Amino acid sequence: MSESDIFSRARRDVSFPDWMASVQAQVEAALARSLPPAEAIPGRLHQAMRYTSLNGGKRVRPLLAFAAGELTAATPQRLEVVASAIELIHSYSLVHDDLPSMDNDVLRRGRPTCHVEYDEATALLVGDSLQSLAFELLAREDFGDPTGQLEMVRLLARAGGSCGMAGGQSIDLESVGRNLNQPELELMHALKTGALIRAAVMLGALCGTALSVRQTSSLDRFAKRAGLLFQVVDDILDCTASTATLGKTAGKDAAAEKPTYVSLMGLERAREFAADLRKQALDSLTIFGERSQRLVELTDFIAQRKF
Amino acid sequence: MSESDIFSRARRDVSFPDWMASVQAQVEAALARSLPPAEAIPGRLHQAMRYTSLNGGKRVRPLLAFAAGELTAATPQRLEVVASAIELIHSYSLVHDDLPSMDNDVLRRGRPTCHVEYDEATALLVGDSLQSLAFELLAREDFGDPTGQLEMVRLLARAGGSCGMAGGQSIDLESVGRNLNQPELELMHALKTGALIRAAVMLGALCGTALSVRQTSSLDRFAKRAGLLFQVVDDILDCTASTATLGKTAGKDAAAEKPTYVSLMGLERAREFAADLRKQALDSLTIFGERSQRLVELTDFIAQRKF
Repeated sequence: MSESDIFSRARRDVSFPDWMASVQAQVEAALARSLPPAEAIPGRLHQAMRYTSLNGGKRVRPLLAFAAGELTAATPQRLEVVASAIELIHSYSLVHDDLPSMDNDVLRRGRPTCHVEYDEATALLVGDSLQSLAFELLAREDFGDPTGQLEMVRLLARAGGSCGMAGGQSIDLESVGRNLNQPELELMHALKTGALIRAAVMLGALCGTALSVRQTSSLDRFAKRAGLLFQVVDDILDCTASTATLGKTAGKDAAAEKPTYVSLMGLERAREFAADLRKQALDSLTIFGERSQRLVELTDFIAQRKF
Repeated sequence: MSESDIFSRARRDVSFPDWMASVQAQVEAALARSLPPAEAIPGRLHQAMRYTSLNGGKRVRPLLAFAAGELTAATPQRLEVVASAIELIHSYSLVHDDLPSMDNDVLRRGRPTCHVEYDEATALLVGDSLQSLAFELLAREDFGDPTGQLEMVRLLARAGGSCGMAGGQSIDLESVGRNLNQPELELMHALKTGALIRAAVMLGALCGTALSVRQTSSLDRFAKRAGLLFQVVDDILDCTASTATLGKTAGKDAAAEKPTYVSLMGLERAREFAADLRKQALDSLTIFGERSQRLVELTDFIAQRKF
C-alpha cells in the first residue's frame, strides 16, 4: 500500500462533515496564498479579487475535485492547485453574472456583490483577472506533470468558454421570457453549471493515477448527472428557500421569467427528477467501490442541501 | 543549415510590407479556424466573437511574435498558434475596455463596438470566452512541447492578469482626473499595454530554439522599450490624428482627462521621447545580428505609424 493509499484510507475514516470542513479550509488557505496580496499594486483590484473569492461559498466544485481525487489516490498538494483553479473560474463567473447588464444582482453569499461593494469597472476586471489567475495556477511549474497539466488547461478552458459555462449563460440570457422545453433547458444547464462541475470531477481524478477507459466514462456519466442534480436542486431552492437562508436573492429566476425545472415541470415533479438523478449518479459510482465514498456522500449532500 | 533556417532566410528576402501582409493573412486564417463557427450553439455569442476578432486590427502583437520567432528559427505552425492566442487576449481586452462601465466607446477598427452591435451582456461573455479560447489554443495537444507550452500559459496568464494588462487598466481607471508623474504613467503603461507586447515577443521566441540568458535579457529589454514606444506613439496619435484615420474615437483620452505622455510632457517632448525609445529598442537587438531584421523593421513601423 503506497503512502498516498494510506493517506486516503485515513481520510476515509474521517466523518463527512469533518472531511468537508477540512477540504474547505485547505482550499480557503490555498486561495488566500494564490491571490495577490491586498496591498500589491493595484490595491483596489487585488482587494476586490480577495473580497470576491475568499470567505464564502460552499466550495462544491473543490469538494468534487477532492472527492474524485480519492478515486486515483491523488495527492492533496495537486488537488489543492486544481481545486483553487476551478474555484477561481467559478468566482469570476459569479462576479460577471451579477453585473447590471447580466443578472443585476446585489447580494451574493450574504454580502453585497462585487460591483455594489466596489464598482462595475472593478468587477469586470476582477472577473477577467480571476480567470487569468486560474490558468496561471494550473500551469504551475512545481506541479510536475506538464502533459497532464496541459490536458487540464484544455479541459478547464473548454468548460469555461463559449461551448461551456459562458455559452450556457448566453443561452440563459436569450431564453428570458421564452418557453424552453426540457431538452433545451438541459442543454442550457449542461453548459451553464454542468460543464464546470464536470471539469471539477475530471481534473480531480487527473491529479492521480490513470483511470481505465471504462472508469473514465463512468466518472463522466456521474459528473453529468451530479451537475444536473445540482441545478435542479438550485431551481427548487430558488422557489422554496428564503433570501436569508440562501445568502443570495431568492425567487429571482421566477421574477425574471427565467425558465427553471420548477417552472417547466412543477415543484413535485422537479423533486422526483432530482431523486432520479441522484440514483443515476450513485449507480455510476459502483464501479469504483469504497474509493468513491466521498463522491457518494457529496452526491447526497448536493441532493439534500437546504441552501 | 536546417530546413527552418532556409525557410527563415527565404522569408527575410521578402519586403517588409509583403512579410507583414503575409503574417496578417496567416493569423487571420488561423483565428478564423480557431474560433467556433458562427452557426454553432450559442450562435449569437459565436457570431459576436467572430465579429470582434476577425477582419480588423494591425495585428501588432502577432507581428511581434512572428518577428521574434525569426530569432530562434521558430516554425510558422507554432507561431500561428501563439500569435492567435495573444491576439485573442488583446481582442477580449478591447471588448471589455469599450464597455460603458469602462471607456464607454462606440467605435473600434472603424466599426461599432461589440456591445453596440450586439448588447452589453453578450460583449461581456465574448470577452470572457475569448480569454478561455486563448488558453485552450496555447494548450493544444498537437503543438508538441508540453513544458514550453506550460511556460507560455504562465507568461500569458501573468501578462493578461491583475499584475499585467487588467492591472494596468485598473490603474488607468483610478488615474482619471489625477496628475500622474512619469514613473506612475510608465508603470500604468508597462502593465496596460506593455505586458502583453512583451508576452508576444517572448512567446514568439519560445516557439523555437532556446535563447542564452544574455539573449533573453536583451530581448526582454527590447520588448519593454518597444511596448512603451507603442504607447507613446498611441498617445501622440490620439491627440494629432482624426477619428476616421484611427478607426477609433480620437482625442478621447484628453476628453476623459486621462493622463497621457502628451499631457505630461507636451507634444514635442513626447516625440523626442519616442525617438529615444526607438533607438534604445534597436540597440537591444544588435546582439541578434541579421536574424533581427523583422524586429528592426517592425520597430520602425511602430515608431512611424500614422494610425
